[in-house]
Amino acid sequence: MRYCVIMCGGVGSRFWPFSRDSRPKQFLDFFGTGRTLIQMTVDRVRGIIEPENILLVTNAAYVGLLREQLPDIPAENILAEPARRNTAPCILWAARHIASRDPEGSMVVLPSDHLILREEEFRAALREGFSFVEQTGSLLTLGITPTGPNTGYGYIQLGDPAENWQGIRKVRLFTEKPDLEMAREFVESGEFVWNAGIFLWSARSIMEAFRLHADDLWSLFESRAADFGTALESEAIAEIFPEARSISIDYAVMEKADNVFVKEVEIGWSDLGTWNSLYDNSSRDSSGNAMQTERVIAEDCSGTLFASGGGRLIVACGLKDYIVADNGNALLICPREREQEIRSVVDDIRERFGAEFL
Amino acid sequence: MRYCVIMCGGVGSRFWPFSRDSRPKQFLDFFGTGRTLIQMTVDRVRGIIEPENILLVTNAAYVGLLREQLPDIPAENILAEPARRNTAPCILWAARHIASRDPEGSMVVLPSDHLILREEEFRAALREGFSFVEQTGSLLTLGITPTGPNTGYGYIQLGDPAENWQGIRKVRLFTEKPDLEMAREFVESGEFVWNAGIFLWSARSIMEAFRLHADDLWSLFESRAADFGTALESEAIAEIFPEARSISIDYAVMEKADNVFVKEVEIGWSDLGTWNSLYDNSSRDSSGNAMQTERVIAEDCSGTLFASGGGRLIVACGLKDYIVADNGNALLICPREREQEIRSVVDDIRERFGAEFL
Repeated sequence: MRYCVIMCGGVGSRFWPFSRDSRPKQFLDFFGTGRTLIQMTVDRVRGIIEPENILLVTNAAYVGLLREQLPDIPAENILAEPARRNTAPCILWAARHIASRDPEGSMVVLPSDHLILREEEFRAALREGFSFVEQTGSLLTLGITPTGPNTGYGYIQLGDPAENWQGIRKVRLFTEKPDLEMAREFVESGEFVWNAGIFLWSARSIMEAFRLHADDLWSLFESRAADFGTALESEAIAEIFPEARSISIDYAVMEKADNVFVKEVEIGWSDLGTWNSLYDNSSRDSSGNAMQTERVIAEDCSGTLFASGGGRLIVACGLKDYIVADNGNALLICPREREQEIRSVVDDIRERFGAEFL
Repeated sequence: MRYCVIMCGGVGSRFWPFSRDSRPKQFLDFFGTGRTLIQMTVDRVRGIIEPENILLVTNAAYVGLLREQLPDIPAENILAEPARRNTAPCILWAARHIASRDPEGSMVVLPSDHLILREEEFRAALREGFSFVEQTGSLLTLGITPTGPNTGYGYIQLGDPAENWQGIRKVRLFTEKPDLEMAREFVESGEFVWNAGIFLWSARSIMEAFRLHADDLWSLFESRAADFGTALESEAIAEIFPEARSISIDYAVMEKADNVFVKEVEIGWSDLGTWNSLYDNSSRDSSGNAMQTERVIAEDCSGTLFASGGGRLIVACGLKDYIVADNGNALLICPREREQEIRSVVDDIRERFGAEFL
């Protein structure tokens, strides 16, 4: 059986004041389409994965939002982490859970807050990817053909083609986010793709990879192996999960395993990690302003992103290349080129005002 | 008996989005002191004029706000205009009303939305002004010693000193708002003061001045002369007021009468006509930012006025010399030097969105 595991426990503080502690960006209707990012993520795999095989790994605080936004996903498919431990423990739990339902099960791991514009190409890639990992027992990641020297993404260096699988190649190297010069070289070489954090494998293969490359995590979960898929699963998780090392799947497994492949795809992808990526993916007027709301009067503004929650009116004059994000009890006005400071501002806010505005 | 007439029917659209159709700036607590501008205006004359002798001339729409904010002013002292006709008809009505109570009554006419920092000096000037107009039958205006070549105010040219009244001089000329060069000349000459729109006279003198210089208005009110001070007064006003010519007291009377005097005062006055005048009158941090709210995080901002209604948080980065005014269902971001465009923006808003944001 094929499963989909959607990771939706992130906090997304870079999208403050839209993303809030109580409602991170995956639960927001960013494009005003009537569907939130998590809903769009689920919609995107419909036809490939049945709702009863979609698992949502999240923070306990967001279970209510998930039930509300995704009423057709069975409640027992929500895996609520008792602590934040990055992606590796989360994925190992999901793999154990799936294996307990179907030892031959395979899975795709998806972030919950990305944008994918070419959904048919995406689904075709998933179908082929599932076939590949089911037949080879390998680990597969989707690599995005770069559209420019983006320094906000990790890159994957392509290796030799897989035998008999067109468009799938061995991974030579996972890289950190590069500086601009290196990113340019990566893109010009044609040998690198963006790491989108979308993975496919069988439950069996990824558990084996944990055993080989992250033995501590494997042993921790193995200690309660018999409890997964039983009434004791949440008790087991409450016990072992907080003990798990906090580490990403990339560091824990992907960079170490020798059976990792990448399928290069062009699916109109963005990680929507920042206001600028939202700006880049929004339609713009002749002055380069991106309006996330119709309730804007912009005089002599250019290159500016206007987002307003709750129907408030924004009147702006003389802004060039700014983010104006107005939502709930807070307002952000920030030059687009300084958006990386938003995270530290959120820390300032917590220090000065507590949680009221977060 | 001495009376005070406070004109409080203005709309103040230049202070949008704080000033709204339903609550113009005189009804706002602009400085966060707990008192609105109209309350501060009334507070300022306490000790000189009894509450039962304070008249409020306003638009019918604001009677509820006045009752709420000034509960100790008797309801019958609120003169609700059935139409907007500028200051001359409003003052003539007030004079008629006062004369019906006390034919020997004198009055000071005050705007409701000005700032006066030196209240003792102001009260001393009123006391002396009342004595002057009561003893001489002249018309008196307060002239503000200019603090700079402000182009937003009208100027008054000083003439010969009044006999036996130190500090009171004949008015030589009322001027329109000058351009910068002329304003500089005015200030350097030492012969000009700002026209603050604060007038003192006896009811009898101002009615006589209307008879001489604005005969149409005088005749209109004279036609129902017997009704003022009776149960028929509001019926009379409903009939004649809409027929009155819309004209300011300056044009209708002050510029024409030959018994107009001016008392020069230094009372820490501002007409608070615009966001910039609020900025000029606010305390500022070392970067020249004026915070009308404590809930601001300003990184690398300078010369910027931050005003937030309702306790919202403003986070701003990289703004130089802006107005950020966030209130109710709307937000304004505008360079301080372009604040004169706010009025036309308000017109745009009405056209595009109707009254929702006004």
